[in-house]
Amino acid sequence: MSLKEDDFADWYLDIVEKAGLSDKRYPIKGMNVWTPYGWKIMRQIDGYIRDEFDATGHDEVCFPLMIPETEFAKEKDHIKGFDEEVYWVTHAGANELDVRLVVRPTSETAMYPMFSLWVRSHQDLPLKTYQIVNTFRYETKQTRPFIRVREIHFFESHTCHVSEEDAQCQIEENIQILSRIAKRICLPYTLLVRTEWDKFPGAHYTVGIDTSMPNGRTLQMGSIHHYRTNFSVPYNITYEDENGEHKHVHQTTFGMSERLVGALIGVHGDDKGLVMPPGIAPIQAVIIPIISKNSAQDVAAFCSRLRDVLSAAGIRTKLDDRDARPGSKYYDWEIKGVPVRLEVGARDIENGVVSFCRRDTGEKGTISADSAAPGVKMLLDVISESMLAKAEEVQRSRVQDIDSLDSIPEDKILRFGWCGSAECGHKFEDEHGFKILGTPYVPEPFHGRCIMCGAETDRPAYAAHTM
Amino acid sequence: MSLKEDDFADWYLDIVEKAGLSDKRYPIKGMNVWTPYGWKIMRQIDGYIRDEFDATGHDEVCFPLMIPETEFAKEKDHIKGFDEEVYWVTHAGANELDVRLVVRPTSETAMYPMFSLWVRSHQDLPLKTYQIVNTFRYETKQTRPFIRVREIHFFESHTCHVSEEDAQCQIEENIQILSRIAKRICLPYTLLVRTEWDKFPGAHYTVGIDTSMPNGRTLQMGSIHHYRTNFSVPYNITYEDENGEHKHVHQTTFGMSERLVGALIGVHGDDKGLVMPPGIAPIQAVIIPIISKNSAQDVAAFCSRLRDVLSAAGIRTKLDDRDARPGSKYYDWEIKGVPVRLEVGARDIENGVVSFCRRDTGEKGTISADSAAPGVKMLLDVISESMLAKAEEVQRSRVQDIDSLDSIPEDKILRFGWCGSAECGHKFEDEHGFKILGTPYVPEPFHGRCIMCGAETDRPAYAAHTM
Repeated sequence: MSLKEDDFADWYLDIVEKAGLSDKRYPIKGMNVWTPYGWKIMRQIDGYIRDEFDATGHDEVCFPLMIPETEFAKEKDHIKGFDEEVYWVTHAGANELDVRLVVRPTSETAMYPMFSLWVRSHQDLPLKTYQIVNTFRYETKQTRPFIRVREIHFFESHTCHVSEEDAQCQIEENIQILSRIAKRICLPYTLLVRTEWDKFPGAHYTVGIDTSMPNGRTLQMGSIHHYRTNFSVPYNITYEDENGEHKHVHQTTFGMSERLVGALIGVHGDDKGLVMPPGIAPIQAVIIPIISKNSAQDVAAFCSRLRDVLSAAGIRTKLDDRDARPGSKYYDWEIKGVPVRLEVGARDIENGVVSFCRRDTGEKGTISADSAAPGVKMLLDVISESMLAKAEEVQRSRVQDIDSLDSIPEDKILRFGWCGSAECGHKFEDEHGFKILGTPYVPEPFHGRCIMCGAETDRPAYAAHTM
Repeated sequence: MSLKEDDFADWYLDIVEKAGLSDKRYPIKGMNVWTPYGWKIMRQIDGYIRDEFDATGHDEVCFPLMIPETEFAKEKDHIKGFDEEVYWVTHAGANELDVRLVVRPTSETAMYPMFSLWVRSHQDLPLKTYQIVNTFRYETKQTRPFIRVREIHFFESHTCHVSEEDAQCQIEENIQILSRIAKRICLPYTLLVRTEWDKFPGAHYTVGIDTSMPNGRTLQMGSIHHYRTNFSVPYNITYEDENGEHKHVHQTTFGMSERLVGALIGVHGDDKGLVMPPGIAPIQAVIIPIISKNSAQDVAAFCSRLRDVLSAAGIRTKLDDRDARPGSKYYDWEIKGVPVRLEVGARDIENGVVSFCRRDTGEKGTISADSAAPGVKMLLDVISESMLAKAEEVQRSRVQDIDSLDSIPEDKILRFGWCGSAECGHKFEDEHGFKILGTPYVPEPFHGRCIMCGAETDRPAYAAHTM
């Protein structure tokens, strides 16, 4: 296995392959096969997404994959932003289609013609929907599993509101949803309002959701957008208000992709393999029998009871009773990142305990066999909190304030004063090769000078190399 | 609402629209939007599919949507069967692709190049996988929601085995899985081995899974196929057996589509709307407060406690406390097919009971308020059994034995002797406009003469008009 510090790119590909997350040998570059273990992780994340959206009054829907070119072209910034990277269906059977069809790169142009039929009166609002589907973009840059692919698994919520303020409240709700999901999957993130030239095509503003990777680059995991009426005008989504007046709805969207899986690998993995946050680990605890000649039957019986007890308590448990040495089993489950390894030998049974080893820290100890289920549950909670705290600390340590353009550290996320002008922004990006990620969505105490023009400013910008 | 007996086609479309199952106004014909209520039903079915496949050792995977033309073309019967009805992606951005891509009509040709990499030794077998995805077929016949659409939600299991016999055992397991799923969703079905000219392109044999609809036509809900080595040879899926010999794997597939939703509508619906089998009803019990002037507060408090008790017991419960007349609420929930309606007024509270009304039979009664949760659960079980029994009875009554070609009833499923020759089969189909569905997968006691040539035969054929 490659080492994480030495060569992040090779290490990452190694983990994806050895942990069995996805298979990139499919005969179309950038379209990978979700193999069982990777798909289980993704589905666990999808489960959290559904929990959160259902609990906040969003309805799950499923819109068609294909979009007629005529609908796709209605919002001009939007099509300009995507037309270089969409796949076109032009034929069916032997026939050429009258209207070409776009394979969804995102679903605004599929949904909004229908929203225009669904929304009639203020009583139909807010309209809150989401879907979990695959989306398609013809990437020309080098592809990488989960991080840059051409078929992308993602969720997208789309909402309609009576006013800009109501839509703004939805943005706040989205941020709350995000914070709960990120906590469950142990991922730190920043919320930065993207620059005007980097916002979503058609958006009023875009909040990027970034995390930082071990190679010092940031990875955008998703984004939240306020559209104002930028789409409702071309798609004619209007409602009659209480006074009988017809108005355009204000819209928001929120989406995150399979990049979450890429982030998990990069943020938590180590030189032994994946390290799975307990919340989404397909297997949370693996039981390894330590068998000697005299104890085989007792240990086997104890382990299978233990498996049943833990499973009954809702812990995703695997008993590894293969005929193999314990050491080689440790190796296998370390690669797959199982949070807790339980070892049971004759002496453990005698002492009424179960030995454990934490995947995240390597820490070892014992828990009482009588309270194995609550003991493992507590351990999983501790691991989860500690993984998040550690990842947040690492993320903080990667941010560096700079107040001069001399000797900029290449592997940091930079924070500096920016007057906010496009001129200074473009100049900074062009001269230094960093990308401006944006300005904090939640204002931070700051006072300084624009690093380019020297003007006083109260708002910092963040910049980084991106994945 | 149209009446079921008068005009099945109109009645069906009416239900789909009024119950909010899907919206067919999307601007591509045959590609419909899954609206929230319909999608909840489909997801409930998908949940059962996952339960069953996971419990029988299948791994869920997710393969790419697009298939290079070069891979698609490897099995010649298969491509001949599908090339009239596939969508072609020919461009990405402004560029013409070097190799055209097929949008999956089914996934053999996506999966099998990878299976050829995954399977090396007999220890890798059986390989048992499934996926739940959408598939695409350019239907030229008239489209109809769930029954004939161009984007089709479905599941497909794909397995590889060391021998024809092992693959045959998988067919038997698939039939067991089907029987459990069908029971949970209250759908009767028949298993008929399709004729040679109607089997899946590339299959050794195909078992069609049909149900019968109120207009006398049959609806194929899915199928189970034995491929023998018909795909493993062109896709080079081989394994090394215990003696070091290289052999081709034997394969099976099993798939059912969103037609299950269409079947539910047709088999169980009535002139008041949908009738949902309890197992997949998004709402299993709806509570309607019957409020009089003096009792409003008591009734409201009682109903909300009842909702909490039922929900806590795992019953999907909705309290309809809208400010509307009970009668109009009844109407709404009848259209949506909620299996149990609970009505609670001051007198019910006084008597310590909750009044119920069954959606399937209209039967009314009361259950003790103290044991409301077990009472409703029992009621749901009774409804489920009774819906299945009734549907099976109806299905049986639609089959008619015929032994002559005079006065064939047009609205029945016909059973008759068939010598099994293609000549007699084609002649029967051509002269009478019926389709031969096949011969029973599970042999039935039968002795008679071929209805065409008069030869003696022990096996009956079934024929019908199909949806």
